[in-house]
Amino acid sequence: MSPAFKTIALIGRYKSRDVAVPLLFLARFLVNRGCQVLVEADTARESGVDSYPVVDYATIGRQADLAIVLGGDGGAPDAGRPLAARGGPLLGANQGRRGFLTDIAFNCVTEKMTQVLDGQYTMETRTLLDPVVSRQGEPVQTPLALNDVVVSKGSSGRLVEMIVHIDKEFVYDLRADGLIVSTPTGSTAYALSSDGPIIQPNVPGLALVPICPQTLSNRPITVPDSCTIDITLKRGHDARLHSDGQPQFDLVDGDRITVRRAEHQVRLIHPPGYSYYAMLREKLHWSESFF
Amino acid sequence: MSPAFKTIALIGRYKSRDVAVPLLFLARFLVNRGCQVLVEADTARESGVDSYPVVDYATIGRQADLAIVLGGDGGAPDAGRPLAARGGPLLGANQGRRGFLTDIAFNCVTEKMTQVLDGQYTMETRTLLDPVVSRQGEPVQTPLALNDVVVSKGSSGRLVEMIVHIDKEFVYDLRADGLIVSTPTGSTAYALSSDGPIIQPNVPGLALVPICPQTLSNRPITVPDSCTIDITLKRGHDARLHSDGQPQFDLVDGDRITVRRAEHQVRLIHPPGYSYYAMLREKLHWSESFF
Amino acid sequence: MSPAFKTIALIGRYKSRDVAVPLLFLARFLVNRGCQVLVEADTARESGVDSYPVVDYATIGRQADLAIVLGGDGGAPDAGRPLAARGGPLLGANQGRRGFLTDIAFNCVTEKMTQVLDGQYTMETRTLLDPVVSRQGEPVQTPLALNDVVVSKGSSGRLVEMIVHIDKEFVYDLRADGLIVSTPTGSTAYALSSDGPIIQPNVPGLALVPICPQTLSNRPITVPDSCTIDITLKRGHDARLHSDGQPQFDLVDGDRITVRRAEHQVRLIHPPGYSYYAMLREKLHWSESFF
Amino acid sequence: MSPAFKTIALIGRYKSRDVAVPLLFLARFLVNRGCQVLVEADTARESGVDSYPVVDYATIGRQADLAIVLGGDGGAPDAGRPLAARGGPLLGANQGRRGFLTDIAFNCVTEKMTQVLDGQYTMETRTLLDPVVSRQGEPVQTPLALNDVVVSKGSSGRLVEMIVHIDKEFVYDLRADGLIVSTPTGSTAYALSSDGPIIQPNVPGLALVPICPQTLSNRPITVPDSCTIDITLKRGHDARLHSDGQPQFDLVDGDRITVRRAEHQVRLIHPPGYSYYAMLREKLHWSESFF
Repeated sequence: MSPAFKTIALIGRYKSRDVAVPLLFLARFLVNRGCQVLVEADTARESGVDSYPVVDYATIGRQADLAIVLGGDGGAPDAGRPLAARGGPLLGANQGRRGFLTDIAFNCVTEKMTQVLDGQYTMETRTLLDPVVSRQGEPVQTPLALNDVVVSKGSSGRLVEMIVHIDKEFVYDLRADGLIVSTPTGSTAYALSSDGPIIQPNVPGLALVPICPQTLSNRPITVPDSCTIDITLKRGHDARLHSDGQPQFDLVDGDRITVRRAEHQVRLIHPPGYSYYAMLREKLHWSESFF
Repeated sequence: MSPAFKTIALIGRYKSRDVAVPLLFLARFLVNRGCQVLVEADTARESGVDSYPVVDYATIGRQADLAIVLGGDGGAPDAGRPLAARGGPLLGANQGRRGFLTDIAFNCVTEKMTQVLDGQYTMETRTLLDPVVSRQGEPVQTPLALNDVVVSKGSSGRLVEMIVHIDKEFVYDLRADGLIVSTPTGSTAYALSSDGPIIQPNVPGLALVPICPQTLSNRPITVPDSCTIDITLKRGHDARLHSDGQPQFDLVDGDRITVRRAEHQVRLIHPPGYSYYAMLREKLHWSESFF
Repeated sequence: MSPAFKTIALIGRYKSRDVAVPLLFLARFLVNRGCQVLVEADTARESGVDSYPVVDYATIGRQADLAIVLGGDGGAPDAGRPLAARGGPLLGANQGRRGFLTDIAFNCVTEKMTQVLDGQYTMETRTLLDPVVSRQGEPVQTPLALNDVVVSKGSSGRLVEMIVHIDKEFVYDLRADGLIVSTPTGSTAYALSSDGPIIQPNVPGLALVPICPQTLSNRPITVPDSCTIDITLKRGHDARLHSDGQPQFDLVDGDRITVRRAEHQVRLIHPPGYSYYAMLREKLHWSESFF
Repeated sequence: MSPAFKTIALIGRYKSRDVAVPLLFLARFLVNRGCQVLVEADTARESGVDSYPVVDYATIGRQADLAIVLGGDGGAPDAGRPLAARGGPLLGANQGRRGFLTDIAFNCVTEKMTQVLDGQYTMETRTLLDPVVSRQGEPVQTPLALNDVVVSKGSSGRLVEMIVHIDKEFVYDLRADGLIVSTPTGSTAYALSSDGPIIQPNVPGLALVPICPQTLSNRPITVPDSCTIDITLKRGHDARLHSDGQPQFDLVDGDRITVRRAEHQVRLIHPPGYSYYAMLREKLHWSESFF
């Protein structure tokens, strides 16, 4: 039987030599199963694995039927953003414990990948955010975000003042350390540490989560993911824009950040037995009471 | 020009003589505008207003084109539930400050109602919850809820243990004072006092908000409002079911409460100038920082 | 060398036959070490252990140099309250995992008890609360509390309205599901599930923690433990008073609950290696980040 | 009768010409009451008020019996720190609304100051923090803090990893946006926006409040204010130290910040009618419920 995914790209999150052993192990398994294996360029260079075609993300997007990210949740956004527009699905595998986006623990990778290649899997889509900064009327494109777009205080460390509109309607003036616009995927990442709500990935919503707001009642709001969210800096002379935790942009007075749902979505592959709630239970220790 | 709503039912929340003056004032205004006025039976009896046809909710449902609820947010759920299936829209008016569901402050009721009768209004739908209790296999219907369905500790005051499934999938065992299943409408009511997220009414989601959970990480989750939520009592020998804050039901061991979105929705009428976010700002004092 | 504690009372929390095996194991160990062993009356009856003098709490208070509570945190308040006035220190042991008040895991009970009997231990005091209910001017004594005194909604399940004064000064009107007055010991119990602050036991403070308050900004306050806290019911026709989680009292309109620090304190014995912060880390999973 | 405070220094927070009018108004009132008035140097220069002796903080410390800070809460820390060691008490007055530390609304300043000069006042002490940075074994003194000492992420915007010890005992490894060490005074400032507990000023405690911690259960702790708190940077290559909100210091790998209660305290003067709880009620809108 031919595998459900013929050409598979391998991407190592940590981009170090440590990833070489699991990478080669997985690559050989896939080749034995009749797949063609590609290795992402940075991964190849830093791991020293050069026995497979070495390709960039654009090529992965064109050629790969599936991309497997090795090494924890952090890799999924990095790999997911460049691949989203071209549609290849992602699957996460990790040597350590499972992550919010990492279904396969490495010690059962052959069992799980056998199931996936046999067509036993489910596919799920995840929303991406597409932030655009308008500076003096000129749009400046910034990277897509799988987890969140954050406007936070910049290098001065002083609080940020911003005006938030949703679909052109005034929402609030915010004086805070920052504001997180989070997808459901991001609702279990940074937003959760700022008291944001967990949003199940099938809910078409985005969370606006203030960071240390100076108004006690300034609680997180979930809005439809079809909204256009505009954030205008008031006196935040050194605010900063982050996509998925990466500092992207130093913002200046009067900059307006417009956040919309991106045109394309990331597709995730889950092997049999995947459960969103099981993952939450495990990651958040829901099975244990404290007294 | 004939009014946008011809037959209008008046419902007084507080069901006391105090409502007589604003009720008569509004009724005369509406009659002068060419409307027919009905008065809800309890409202008529307790206010002593008997100069208009006195009708029950079933008749309001059949005959009224619009129901106006006098007296604050609390009245909207009470009036909204019986009217939902039959579709007449609601409008809230209040003598005091505005509420989450009460657009019209009474001191500008003639101005706002003139606009509404002239067809200047927007219509919005709000989800209702339809809880069913299964006891030894037998379903027991309970009232619809506009805000929330709550399983909470009963008369003994001891914590409740329950098992939660969503669409047949196990979510968690919960040891807590209770669990709130909230609509977006309810997200600014009881759920907010238990640290629940605010959900904009256009988001098709429901929030599961634990009350005083014994697991610190047991945070609120927003799930799609198309979900079926099952709550099974473990050892909650005297838990209780509340719909919109009313104690509805004493629950016993093994009872299963199934909560789904109701078939029908409540329709709300808003006069010009309504803004959900303006209402949040005003009610939650978002314009003031504490330091 | 004679043991540091000569007469030792054994108290089983769960008061079931299950406690018989560890109870007998520990009793024999202590007798071998030269101690005299007493068994608390309920513990003896329910475990069936009758080979040692069976005594009530009053006798334990007079005769025992140390009381060992078997079976988790819950037992410490139950044993601590009757023993506080007479001053015998407590030590907790548990067959399962350690608790906030339970230092000794049973699988190392002989090692740890050897150290304690050799005088290697530290002693710590914990504040108790002494609530008094005034009904129509008459004081009604209620039990001491090691964790918390809670005024919460009663059997009707409706919210409680209360007026809080501290040292005769008006603090707030509270509309809520309840109010927790917590000692530092109780700050890691029920109060923690209602978003209360953790208070290190050496801080002479009490926390006032509202349960589901209807005012978003109604945050927990820590006040000096020398304060007199008065809670007067407004319209809470069926509120209820709980000491350490036990329903003690149905409250009626106009009841005033006065909470003060009790005259005596509970003394806890810790074997070598005890660390309050280590216990918090372990119980609250502080070593693990969620993403 | 001679005034209770003979020499009074006036300090304007905003240090702008706007403060000239209230400053002169207050100065004339005080001179008419027989006081000698000093004006702080920056205040004099920026307001243009030069008709009174212009002095620096050291002189205020030596000569003034009382310092009045005009212009909101922010001025009290700035004035309080340099004056703490020399013991002159402070009093806050504001043209706008009252603050946590600002008792006197300017529209009743003559009435209130008459009372104070007649000896009708209460005195309260507030704890200061004394942070010291150890870099490669060398101590670097940093300013005292009335509200808080904060270690937060620096200019890179990446999270901070730190190890916290209290009295040499390991408390936790923290991965977070930062850590606030707050006095009771600071518990209603920045710490409150990060979900910290309110601590009544007579409680001898300090709050450790993590900012956006990556561990959900990493809750604020209140510890005795006699503690020594050590914070060691792990990989926080660009963390930053703030005292009372001012960026004081760029921290580097391995820096250890030691926070202790300062030797001296700030003394605050309150006119008759002051109530800590009334101030909380007013500032935090405790009198209003949201539904």
